[in-house]
Amino acid sequence: MYIVILAGGSGTRFWPLSRKSTPKQLMSVFGGKSMLQRTVERVLPLQPKRVMIVTNALQAAETRRQVAYIDDVPVDVIEEPVGRNTAPAIGLAASIIARFDADGVMVVLPADHYILDEERFRDTIVKGCEAAASGKLVTLGITPTRPETGYGYIEAEADGNGAPVAVRRFVEKPPLERAMEFLATGRFYWNSGMFVWGACAILDQIGAFMPELSAALAKLTFEQEVWELSDLRPQIAEVYAGIKGESIDFGVMEKAQDVQVIAASFGWSDVGSWSALPEVMMADEDGHVLIDAKGSVSIGSDGCLAYGGGKLVAFVGVKDLIVVDTPDALLVCDKSAAQDVKKVVEELERRGKFDYL
Amino acid sequence: MYIVILAGGSGTRFWPLSRKSTPKQLMSVFGGKSMLQRTVERVLPLQPKRVMIVTNALQAAETRRQVAYIDDVPVDVIEEPVGRNTAPAIGLAASIIARFDADGVMVVLPADHYILDEERFRDTIVKGCEAAASGKLVTLGITPTRPETGYGYIEAEADGNGAPVAVRRFVEKPPLERAMEFLATGRFYWNSGMFVWGACAILDQIGAFMPELSAALAKLTFEQEVWELSDLRPQIAEVYAGIKGESIDFGVMEKAQDVQVIAASFGWSDVGSWSALPEVMMADEDGHVLIDAKGSVSIGSDGCLAYGGGKLVAFVGVKDLIVVDTPDALLVCDKSAAQDVKKVVEELERRGKFDYL
Repeated sequence: MYIVILAGGSGTRFWPLSRKSTPKQLMSVFGGKSMLQRTVERVLPLQPKRVMIVTNALQAAETRRQVAYIDDVPVDVIEEPVGRNTAPAIGLAASIIARFDADGVMVVLPADHYILDEERFRDTIVKGCEAAASGKLVTLGITPTRPETGYGYIEAEADGNGAPVAVRRFVEKPPLERAMEFLATGRFYWNSGMFVWGACAILDQIGAFMPELSAALAKLTFEQEVWELSDLRPQIAEVYAGIKGESIDFGVMEKAQDVQVIAASFGWSDVGSWSALPEVMMADEDGHVLIDAKGSVSIGSDGCLAYGGGKLVAFVGVKDLIVVDTPDALLVCDKSAAQDVKKVVEELERRGKFDYL
Repeated sequence: MYIVILAGGSGTRFWPLSRKSTPKQLMSVFGGKSMLQRTVERVLPLQPKRVMIVTNALQAAETRRQVAYIDDVPVDVIEEPVGRNTAPAIGLAASIIARFDADGVMVVLPADHYILDEERFRDTIVKGCEAAASGKLVTLGITPTRPETGYGYIEAEADGNGAPVAVRRFVEKPPLERAMEFLATGRFYWNSGMFVWGACAILDQIGAFMPELSAALAKLTFEQEVWELSDLRPQIAEVYAGIKGESIDFGVMEKAQDVQVIAASFGWSDVGSWSALPEVMMADEDGHVLIDAKGSVSIGSDGCLAYGGGKLVAFVGVKDLIVVDTPDALLVCDKSAAQDVKKVVEELERRGKFDYL
């Protein structure tokens, strides 16, 4: 088993804590370890042969620094010259694995997801590996807990009762009414972006549905007999120069046969914006979630989230606010507008305020 | 003419920028000079004989430091051992002035008021001095611009057309309906806490209506023939040990005869809380008032006030908020709850968090 962690996200929605060089997955947002470090540690008990982290050049140094302490398992950091969505990153990792281990099964995990029950998460991965060993493309479908309109859904042919079951179709983000219908059927799952499959199996499917990417990946040559990726950079640059960005969902999963879904109910959040943190962190007695704060005082306030920059935080007459205090920038945001934090980043880019990006 | 500046206020409503040792009047809230420094500079063109600043022991050092650069006029800093409201502070200053200059007229000014048109302010003071020279107690009544329920009012016998006119009565903070009636008559003014009177005249009235304070003040003795206040501290401590706190309004003004009011319309704010700052500072094009900030980004937001601690401030989906970022404490407050900031200070006192006070 090989773990492939997709870690190149820009995480603009966690600005100002997240910046281009330290996006969400590299942030220590819960205090302590970063989400990337947690993602790596979470899979170590599975004893994978290698952990491969695909990221971009800007984040590579910090990524290497953060995983340097891992010595149970070899960890590779693969640099993409430019982000091209998930299909090229997965294809690249699959090509490398397949070169050295034609029977290798790869587990694809985003670096920036929160998982509550890690034991159950690993059990689900093991089940996925079993199905992948028989040639299936397995996707982890999160059992929905609310009619969320912000995620894509996967419809299963039947309720698998925890076992892998055939996928009927992938569905784009639905309007609320449809999301409620989905929830009622018991056969719809959130598309988590976590996958398990054979390296050769996914390369076959890329060959079938993404011939351009497949041809570019086929040019990769490996001179050494040993697993050593540092010399691959010029070749990767060449591969990426000729391909366009595409997600593995759109490029392969929505078209492929033999796709299965395993219902996953280990407590999951993609922590897509500041407003998602209260889902995965305990609120204090006043109903506020505080990170990196020296306590709080709350007068007629509740439901706020503060990243306090080590300060005492006082709330007076406010509800459902997000406040993030960093050394050079201060964000004040209504929880319902948390998705718009990325607009701040866009505006700063437009103004050329690169120091804040 | 002597200027007496009352500067001992605690200013808890400007927490966390204001602290016990640097209350509102000593803060550089508008950038640049403090409100105390502005208050002193504002009167210098009047060429007063002396400026006397009454403050407390905790703030005396910073007060002296802030006025050290004034060399046009002698400036005295008088330390009260403990705050006892305005009557004792005024009585103390009047006793000192009367000792050296029996005909001295004193202008009493709070240290923490904002005044827009300084030329017109000085014209009003000069008119007040003329009335005071004939023995009147003159109070500056601010021509109201809205039916404010947070101030006390002064009812004049008639519209003085800018000249001093007899006061009919002082009125406590009214409910909205009454405040609207007051506004309609054209004879009601906001009680600003600014007064002009002869030092002996106010001491006479204190003698008539506040015999206890009068008796305590009578014990003050002045050994030197020169104006030198540094040796007065033990005597002041003795005076203050035996008196109770009282405002000059309640203690004298509401009872005295020969009280006059001058309509003042020079643009005034007592800047009583963070929410008053937008009245006296320009908002930017997004409708936010920014102090000590490196610019802002506003997404779907308006009407906020931020003291930015030198940072970039981003507003997303928020309205009418006050955000104050200091090195050790961060305040987030709805404008409508700005009066409750003092409750934060009370709570911090209750918890013994003296570092934040």
